[in-house]
Amino acid sequence: MRDALRINGQRLVARLAALGEIGALEGGGVCRLALSDEDRQGRERVIDWMRELGLSVSVDAMGNLFGLRPGREEGPPVMTGSHIDTVRTGGLYDGNLGVLAGLEVIETLNDAGITTRRPLCVAAFTNEEGARFAPDMMGSLVYVGGMPLEEALETRGIDGARVGDCLDAIGARGEAPVGAPDVHAFVELHIEQGPVLEESGVTIGAVEKVQGISWTEFTFTGTSNHAGTTPMRLRHDAGYAAMATATFVRELATRLGGDQVGTVGALTLSPNLVNVVANQARFTVDLRNTDNELLKQAERSLADFVTQLAEEEGIEVERRTLARFDPVPFDPAMVDRVEASARALGHSVMRMPSGAGHDAQMLARVCPTSMIFVPSVGGISHNIKEYTAPDDLEAGANVLLQVLLGLSE
Amino acid sequence: MRDALRINGQRLVARLAALGEIGALEGGGVCRLALSDEDRQGRERVIDWMRELGLSVSVDAMGNLFGLRPGREEGPPVMTGSHIDTVRTGGLYDGNLGVLAGLEVIETLNDAGITTRRPLCVAAFTNEEGARFAPDMMGSLVYVGGMPLEEALETRGIDGARVGDCLDAIGARGEAPVGAPDVHAFVELHIEQGPVLEESGVTIGAVEKVQGISWTEFTFTGTSNHAGTTPMRLRHDAGYAAMATATFVRELATRLGGDQVGTVGALTLSPNLVNVVANQARFTVDLRNTDNELLKQAERSLADFVTQLAEEEGIEVERRTLARFDPVPFDPAMVDRVEASARALGHSVMRMPSGAGHDAQMLARVCPTSMIFVPSVGGISHNIKEYTAPDDLEAGANVLLQVLLGLSE
Repeated sequence: MRDALRINGQRLVARLAALGEIGALEGGGVCRLALSDEDRQGRERVIDWMRELGLSVSVDAMGNLFGLRPGREEGPPVMTGSHIDTVRTGGLYDGNLGVLAGLEVIETLNDAGITTRRPLCVAAFTNEEGARFAPDMMGSLVYVGGMPLEEALETRGIDGARVGDCLDAIGARGEAPVGAPDVHAFVELHIEQGPVLEESGVTIGAVEKVQGISWTEFTFTGTSNHAGTTPMRLRHDAGYAAMATATFVRELATRLGGDQVGTVGALTLSPNLVNVVANQARFTVDLRNTDNELLKQAERSLADFVTQLAEEEGIEVERRTLARFDPVPFDPAMVDRVEASARALGHSVMRMPSGAGHDAQMLARVCPTSMIFVPSVGGISHNIKEYTAPDDLEAGANVLLQVLLGLSE
Repeated sequence: MRDALRINGQRLVARLAALGEIGALEGGGVCRLALSDEDRQGRERVIDWMRELGLSVSVDAMGNLFGLRPGREEGPPVMTGSHIDTVRTGGLYDGNLGVLAGLEVIETLNDAGITTRRPLCVAAFTNEEGARFAPDMMGSLVYVGGMPLEEALETRGIDGARVGDCLDAIGARGEAPVGAPDVHAFVELHIEQGPVLEESGVTIGAVEKVQGISWTEFTFTGTSNHAGTTPMRLRHDAGYAAMATATFVRELATRLGGDQVGTVGALTLSPNLVNVVANQARFTVDLRNTDNELLKQAERSLADFVTQLAEEEGIEVERRTLARFDPVPFDPAMVDRVEASARALGHSVMRMPSGAGHDAQMLARVCPTSMIFVPSVGGISHNIKEYTAPDDLEAGANVLLQVLLGLSE
């Protein structure tokens, strides 16, 4: 009978739309930056829903929000959830889907009169996006003990505001402790935010790992020269060197293949004039791989290329690490559960990595964890055009239901 | 006796310093934008000097300033000169040297009691730099009939000001006609603004041609994507394509060799974020060659590369021509005169192209023309650090004296 249980897709879509009204942008999408007044309104709506569903609501000292549904037995809960903060031009699905699908699962169980053996918990973690306060995934990181609470509270945002003050200002600082959670397992439903499922014609991604991330900012300093009067052999062109490095990054990622990606997304030249050889170029390199050894190999290749190029071109190089996270493997049995549930429901499914960071990778430090991905149309996310078809939302939430049922027995 | 005549180097340096006081910047250098109040003050000082030297001063309808010294015979004058406007962070030498060395030659002839057969004329052309009003070399272009006066007067600057209004405001609009000058020959002394003479250990450049210039602005439009979740094969990365094009421009210039130079000095990515594949890249390509056929070949190679790359990457391309000037060859006999005079004076000399534009290239349309280059320390120009050693200034002015003496007999 439990295998035949299904969530209500229309109810899920309605909740996504209702939450999307808070911070709604003209033309679609939503702006609900972490710890903003819109975030407060979003939290209050989620808390109202949790209470309507009979969940016991608690908030921890980091503002992480939990709705607990007791089981037939005491013990650590099976947890699901995600976040409801967004980037400045966010969509309706990123994060929100994971929280609201969790509530939809609860409502489905309520309607069916099912009490699971283990408790269930739906979480909404504070500041997953990092769009206002760095680092991203801050709430879940503090929750699992990966960052001292005090450090997080003292963090200042791009607007100068302090996390602790903002938590107080929106009434989101709770009393539940952080740093030693006891969770039986964690599974997070999320939109893919990439094009792979759509391109492959597959409905469900069983996420088996999160890519490691290596962000480096380079500043190249050469000599500003007249573009007409300076022969090529006498140039120390910081702009050329930066752009040759960007070209190398593409070659490197293509050559390494597999999951390796490499991006130069930001570059600023100085003085940035048509007829002046740039004396300074500042740019970032984003390298990601699910295999830490391959990621390290990519980092070494890049470093070697830059060192040699700088010598040839006669320029100075400064390097600054902006971020470095090792890849996170998810629990294979948890990934199997996602894959098996998807198949049992008749959905196409593929095992895949996550190229983006998620709260689940923090939870993986303290309990068996996996994620369920559903397709993003056009691979578009962090954009008001972010969209996932209702059938895919429903499919993902049904997989979540079955995985939670399985884990909680 | 005339071969033994020498200019007074200290007097020349003193005039350069005195003119450099007008619009002087802290830390050195000068800002004397075309038709600004500083330009007015500069013009007044030059006019005062011309009158002190007994020259007959005239100003044309474009504000070009001329000081005429009668010869023993009537007829078209032998002309020298340059400009006294500067870029925003200009030096003391660019342009000013050509005007003030002309005055120094006049004073030397006055002191020696020499009257040449042909009249001599020292010119200061309006708005050579183009830093406030485009195009550059505007005054000399109008003077030779290359642009209608009315069009030049209607031109608006980066500050919205109209050339005609600004000429009136600083009292620089004169009555002499433009468009059909009768000049026997023109020779301009200028700093090289590049590193070639210094690198070669040579004092005098006999400029035999001015490079042709091809400026193109490209706008590449691709798709903005998450740098983590978008596999390399599914990207339409406008930033990568722009940077690969810049890398190609370097390869192209190196491969073509000779005088060919190629520069990507300006590039702007959008949204310019570390973890987002750029959906738009706007950048400029500056190609120059003294041979127009080779320049056209470079333009074709670039166009072919961009077309193929855009197809492979799946991006849209817009192209806009910002500037296109054919190369200007100088009169070989005039170049020989410069070279021979330099040798006769005991200076090392090399024939060379000019990579920058100069008023002389406009005068070349109406009379035999050449230029004399002196070394720029470090190849630096359009910069408050612009510097040419006094001995080199003096050497260049002595070559100018001898060439003018030869042409005016």
